[in-house]
Amino acid sequence: MTEHTLFTRIIEGEIPCYKLYENEYVFAFLDINPLSKGHTLLVSKEPAPSIDHLSQDSAAAIGKALPILSRAIKEATGAIAYNIIQNNGREAGMTVPHVHFHIIPKYKESKHVFTWEPKALDATEGKSIADAIQLSLNE
Amino acid sequence: MTEHTLFTRIIEGEIPCYKLYENEYVFAFLDINPLSKGHTLLVSKEPAPSIDHLSQDSAAAIGKALPILSRAIKEATGAIAYNIIQNNGREAGMTVPHVHFHIIPKYKESKHVFTWEPKALDATEGKSIADAIQLSLNE
Repeated sequence: MTEHTLFTRIIEGEIPCYKLYENEYVFAFLDINPLSKGHTLLVSKEPAPSIDHLSQDSAAAIGKALPILSRAIKEATGAIAYNIIQNNGREAGMTVPHVHFHIIPKYKESKHVFTWEPKALDATEGKSIADAIQLSLNE
Repeated sequence: MTEHTLFTRIIEGEIPCYKLYENEYVFAFLDINPLSKGHTLLVSKEPAPSIDHLSQDSAAAIGKALPILSRAIKEATGAIAYNIIQNNGREAGMTVPHVHFHIIPKYKESKHVFTWEPKALDATEGKSIADAIQLSLNE
């Protein structure tokens, strides 16, 4: 049984959308609250609540859809650059708990930024974090 | 011939890094200018300058690596949430022109946000943008 998140209802056509793309695993449509012209949502049909819960098949399909959609969005909008953002967990700004990627075009006149102040990694901390992540990867 | 971006030099071991993960297509390591503990870069070995130039094989592999790495980072760091960010083009904040995904953990005490003010999509504009993107997709 599929969980009925807002995105599942859009995918199933229960809620209308400006649909852009669909295949067995993914579905893409215009964000109805765009940050810029052509702001797109690429959603996995699998209703995983965050990307760490997504199956390998859906993850590969999302990966493959990103270049395809990005090319079309760039070409159709004339965007000069774009950001891809995928939030996981409410505390990270995820509003619908169903894996989705934002593709956000940027134009000459765009003011939005997704950058941050660089701060150097401490060597001791780097080693200890890398060891811990590798341990989890090898479990 | 491989273009020698900063990331190609890291992948080839010419520049040291805190390596986390590697397979035929992708390479992951700690960002040396982390925004938060465990901030990771997932890089395609293919030196595409933006994701719209990435091959389908590399894109699928990047997609598959995201859940694997995200799970390990969450488990190793105890992060409560995380953002995945991928910038394309200098104007979008891309500093190294070689496809890379930031995985940025968030903690209770984290102050960073990657959200924006919602602004409703105009229906006429929505239809015209969706038509243009679909046209590019079908070319």
